[in-house]
Amino acid sequence: MQNPELSITRADTALVDDPTTAYIAYHDKYVIVYDFSQIDASVATKELTLLLEDLESAGLQTEVRAGYEDSLLVLVQAPRELLGNTVHHSRVKDWLYGISKKHPGGTSNTIVAGANEAEDLLSLYHLVTWTKELGGAGITPGFGKWENVTSTFPLHNPRTNQKLLVHLSKRFFLSPDDLDQIRDLWGTKVAFYFAFIQDYFLSLTFPCVAGVLAWAFLPKYSLVFAVVICVWCTVFLEYWKLREVDLSIRWGVRGVGKLKVNRPQFQFEKEVKDDVGRVHHVFPRWKRIVRQLVALPFLVLSTILLTSVIVFVFALETFIVEGYDGPYDYYLEYLPTVILALLLPFINNYLEGLAARLTEYENHRTADYYEMSLTQKIFVLQSISNYLPIFLVAFVYVPFGQIFIPLLRTYILSLAGVAVDPDFTFHVDSNKLRNEVITLTLTGQISSAIEELALPYLKNSVKDWWRTYRTSHTFATGGQTKFVKGDDPMEARFLRRVRKQASLAPYDVHEDISEMVLQFGYLALFSPVWPLIPIGFFINNWFELRADIIKITIEHQRPAPIRNDGIGPWVASLEALTWLGSLTSAAIVHLFGFSNSTIYGFNRWWTLPITIFASEHIFLGFRAGVRWALHAIGSEHIRKERSELYAERKKHLDELEASSAKRGHLDVVERERRKSVRMTAADVFWTRQVEEGASRRAGVGIIRAMKGTYMDDLVKEE
Amino acid sequence: MQNPELSITRADTALVDDPTTAYIAYHDKYVIVYDFSQIDASVATKELTLLLEDLESAGLQTEVRAGYEDSLLVLVQAPRELLGNTVHHSRVKDWLYGISKKHPGGTSNTIVAGANEAEDLLSLYHLVTWTKELGGAGITPGFGKWENVTSTFPLHNPRTNQKLLVHLSKRFFLSPDDLDQIRDLWGTKVAFYFAFIQDYFLSLTFPCVAGVLAWAFLPKYSLVFAVVICVWCTVFLEYWKLREVDLSIRWGVRGVGKLKVNRPQFQFEKEVKDDVGRVHHVFPRWKRIVRQLVALPFLVLSTILLTSVIVFVFALETFIVEGYDGPYDYYLEYLPTVILALLLPFINNYLEGLAARLTEYENHRTADYYEMSLTQKIFVLQSISNYLPIFLVAFVYVPFGQIFIPLLRTYILSLAGVAVDPDFTFHVDSNKLRNEVITLTLTGQISSAIEELALPYLKNSVKDWWRTYRTSHTFATGGQTKFVKGDDPMEARFLRRVRKQASLAPYDVHEDISEMVLQFGYLALFSPVWPLIPIGFFINNWFELRADIIKITIEHQRPAPIRNDGIGPWVASLEALTWLGSLTSAAIVHLFGFSNSTIYGFNRWWTLPITIFASEHIFLGFRAGVRWALHAIGSEHIRKERSELYAERKKHLDELEASSAKRGHLDVVERERRKSVRMTAADVFWTRQVEEGASRRAGVGIIRAMKGTYMDDLVKEE
Repeated sequence: MQNPELSITRADTALVDDPTTAYIAYHDKYVIVYDFSQIDASVATKELTLLLEDLESAGLQTEVRAGYEDSLLVLVQAPRELLGNTVHHSRVKDWLYGISKKHPGGTSNTIVAGANEAEDLLSLYHLVTWTKELGGAGITPGFGKWENVTSTFPLHNPRTNQKLLVHLSKRFFLSPDDLDQIRDLWGTKVAFYFAFIQDYFLSLTFPCVAGVLAWAFLPKYSLVFAVVICVWCTVFLEYWKLREVDLSIRWGVRGVGKLKVNRPQFQFEKEVKDDVGRVHHVFPRWKRIVRQLVALPFLVLSTILLTSVIVFVFALETFIVEGYDGPYDYYLEYLPTVILALLLPFINNYLEGLAARLTEYENHRTADYYEMSLTQKIFVLQSISNYLPIFLVAFVYVPFGQIFIPLLRTYILSLAGVAVDPDFTFHVDSNKLRNEVITLTLTGQISSAIEELALPYLKNSVKDWWRTYRTSHTFATGGQTKFVKGDDPMEARFLRRVRKQASLAPYDVHEDISEMVLQFGYLALFSPVWPLIPIGFFINNWFELRADIIKITIEHQRPAPIRNDGIGPWVASLEALTWLGSLTSAAIVHLFGFSNSTIYGFNRWWTLPITIFASEHIFLGFRAGVRWALHAIGSEHIRKERSELYAERKKHLDELEASSAKRGHLDVVERERRKSVRMTAADVFWTRQVEEGASRRAGVGIIRAMKGTYMDDLVKEE
Repeated sequence: MQNPELSITRADTALVDDPTTAYIAYHDKYVIVYDFSQIDASVATKELTLLLEDLESAGLQTEVRAGYEDSLLVLVQAPRELLGNTVHHSRVKDWLYGISKKHPGGTSNTIVAGANEAEDLLSLYHLVTWTKELGGAGITPGFGKWENVTSTFPLHNPRTNQKLLVHLSKRFFLSPDDLDQIRDLWGTKVAFYFAFIQDYFLSLTFPCVAGVLAWAFLPKYSLVFAVVICVWCTVFLEYWKLREVDLSIRWGVRGVGKLKVNRPQFQFEKEVKDDVGRVHHVFPRWKRIVRQLVALPFLVLSTILLTSVIVFVFALETFIVEGYDGPYDYYLEYLPTVILALLLPFINNYLEGLAARLTEYENHRTADYYEMSLTQKIFVLQSISNYLPIFLVAFVYVPFGQIFIPLLRTYILSLAGVAVDPDFTFHVDSNKLRNEVITLTLTGQISSAIEELALPYLKNSVKDWWRTYRTSHTFATGGQTKFVKGDDPMEARFLRRVRKQASLAPYDVHEDISEMVLQFGYLALFSPVWPLIPIGFFINNWFELRADIIKITIEHQRPAPIRNDGIGPWVASLEALTWLGSLTSAAIVHLFGFSNSTIYGFNRWWTLPITIFASEHIFLGFRAGVRWALHAIGSEHIRKERSELYAERKKHLDELEASSAKRGHLDVVERERRKSVRMTAADVFWTRQVEEGASRRAGVGIIRAMKGTYMDDLVKEE
């Protein structure tokens, strides 16, 4: 159609249906999806008008096209001048708030090109979503007056995506440069996840080797292996904390949290003007604290609910599989698992919805705080449904099963009116714990891979096919087909891509991180049960990393390149798991690692608290030691940052030091002046020895007198 | 003698023997004591010459007078220009290193008066002690070539000291202004101690009230009281941490640690020049870490040594008092206590000396790190000798005494060859624990008061009297008397004061803080034993605060006004004690708080670990909650500091925002330009709806079509 060479430079390329998609710039495009299916035409018209006005008032250019179904695609492009200036402003603001150490130079009208797509898109994201007071268009999808804006997203850059995938498929480990590429594409928030999974994956080699050795040479439920894993968890975590600092300095996002603007959902109680004329929107802190305390009963109740569901299903399963031999035995065996599989996602979903509403109620000022609070709640819920079954097997079923399962059986059978066989004895399957851990971790990995990759891909493919089919075969749906079919042929392919991306779900990096954290938890909590677990994780994570990149490129809208200086609250979750692991590992080794039923000469249940107590405090002491040592060694990047700061200061100091060199001895003139000024008696003291050498003569005189030598010697010497 | 009114202004007053001492300026005077008793006259002469040359090369004026015995007093005064300029330099440096947020103004030759005596004296201290490269005279008392310089100190300001004492005697509580006065006189390091003791004293009202209530209404060894005290410890500590930040911002010393220069004792392995041309003296971190690890076996061995001494004396005492009825019974009873009283200080002194040498070996770069490391070691040693006796009574003597004391008795008697009475039974004194705690805390307070106040006062008085007596009655000592007697009558009284201060010990604030920390420890660890302990502490601390001020003014050299941003490593010690307290309190309540020997239906010794475990985790959870809440509420001063920072930034932002207001709609000219430039196909997409309202029309058209309304309506509407 056109000569591709002509449109190669960044500024004058645009979104067209270029067959190679190579020459389209994606750094200045944003898509807003407006859904008018729920409202009537006049309201929709008004809202659309307002939407376009707001976008234009922020200086953005718009093109409107039809979307799938009752939706519009508002394609937004920032003029080069506006985007370049916004990027520059953003850099100046970084400098003002101490995120970057050097002023970027230029004046308030300077136009710069972003260092990468992510930087440009972040500024564009701000132009679209920030409030008008901050210079944006104030588009807040799904909230307030923009309830019908279903999503806003930047467009995927297919060429760079593909390049990244090809590049990564050739590398076994990711270098910092590879992480930089991810950062350039999707911003630091996503890049930190990949940095984490990469570091975690690499460090897993250690437990893998240890696991193989333990499996080959150590007894089952080995204490040594448990200690090794606990040490590894601690060291890895402390190392990762330093690494977060290093990376955030490398990417220039250290302390970026304080720069974040108010969430649109944030409701303030009053406006406070501070000394420097800044207006703060204030919601009293104590109120938020009180509201956050509501989370406690919520979590307690959720825990009880989840526990009882799991315990119930578990008891039923145990009973049917191992204690029940009544009618329909064979079919009933699978019933509890089916019930749990049906119930748990439903309950979890419900609870997570409640958690989100609770967090909304807490009224956090920034999106960061909101995410942090919600993440922590969801983490607790997920932990319970993931780890509780293993806890039950380890600390209830195996040790007490022999006692309570026959009782349970008798009770249920009597309820069912079946005759009880009094001679029934029950033997606990001693491998049950190991099998449970293996099953849960293995099926967890596989099912999550299916859930994350295969299912959405199938779903999207089917949806896609259905739409295409309908568009080309049906005429009954009227307008929609008309508009989609009526695309300008030059734009058709491009619009098809935009429409497809508009129908995808946004990407939530926390879901992926939480998966890794849960995996880490299995290791930290139950490592002594089966030392080969880390190998499964190691293999899984190699694929996981690559699969997640594919997932983002194919199954999700491109994430807004939001900046973060780490994986945030997840570090606290990892620390909690490691701590808890020091308790559970010790308990597992204590209960299962010894063949006789007494330990230290006493019943093992009495000595269990002592073991746990000792293990926990050894862990805490060790952790304090690791922290202290790593703190003393420190972060390379922090030192570099400091010396850069110093360079700036040095300029000032130099001037001062040059002048201080001139000070020193009072010169003769000054000395004479001092003697000649009208002296008060107060000055007399300090002028007695003002002559050069007078102090010395006086002192030496005293020394000689005390040592019994005469003043004469002194005079002779001189 | 002279008209006092004439010398009232600061600059031209000087050190003379003014009877009122009111018109002498102390902000620019420093005293160096040179002791030549160990060396011969020629060496002394050389050293003195060097000393005076070094002082003069730093621009300082000197007057030499005879001191007591074989010593010289080198009186140092900084000329106004030099001192004022040094103060200014110091402020600029603070600004450069981010301690203060505003440039102090002025050029490198600016001369300013310090805001208070402490600021001037700090600069003078730097002029005397810093190396020549840093612009000082490099006088390092007792180290290197200045081994014979016994001390350097600023002179006490008797008038201000007295004013402060009179002022404080009228106040029951210290206000922040009162703390400011202490800071003005002795610097922040000392002021932080008084701030701490003041806050601690105030907060003690809470455990006092709780203690009285517990004593009146609660059973002995009350769980409720233990919980209350643990809560109080936690809240107080977290509050104090915020308070440290507040005060350090108020006093402009936040982060002052990074400004500290190398200790003279620091030995570096290599000089490293960084990118900005700064020379770093480097001692490898891993080497220091390895050296610090030596402290572990040292502390373990010290603990074993102290424990065995205490256990031995304790066993002996118990045996003699309660189990022995052989010959010399009456006299022998007091023997163990006497042995312990003689042994412990000796052993402690020896161990503290070792700790100091170990810390020296660790080769810390700054005096701060050195102090921190030494303080922590000494704290561990002190804790053992203070708390171990109570631990032994609580967890060994009372629960097991009945079993092992008869055995011990039999064993010792058989060793002594005395016939054993097989019917002997021993009854543990159930009040022993309470008595032990009361005795230790009460006698501790009294003996420390005597040790700190009365003894040094007596010692100094006697010394003083002896010197005066000798000076006036003896002529055999020769030179010394001659010089001291030969003082210029105008200077005599002043010199007497200087000589007296030169003979005093320097003040070590850590000793006073450690006393308070140990006291806090008694509360945190053993509160349920006797709920009235806090009342004794409360009364003691009211006097302690005032006595410490008197102590500094009378019995110590005036401390150099060194800056610090808190009480440093002691906070960690307090935290450790609180944590440990959550274990010991629970254990005491568990063992002594119930009259029957079973708890939860089991032997109390089996359930003890469970209680401790639960108590510790409740404590940790509660502490996390308090930290979270206080962190959310935050520090008032930090917010203030931030808004000051913002004021500076605002200036920059204003310019930017003014220009951003001009942005917005593309104007008509620009729009036409865009249409008229030679367009590539890539641009076509983005110019389709460039006309005003075109996007809107397109969008509304789609909406209406989809909703089944006609374009005509739209046209009509418009």
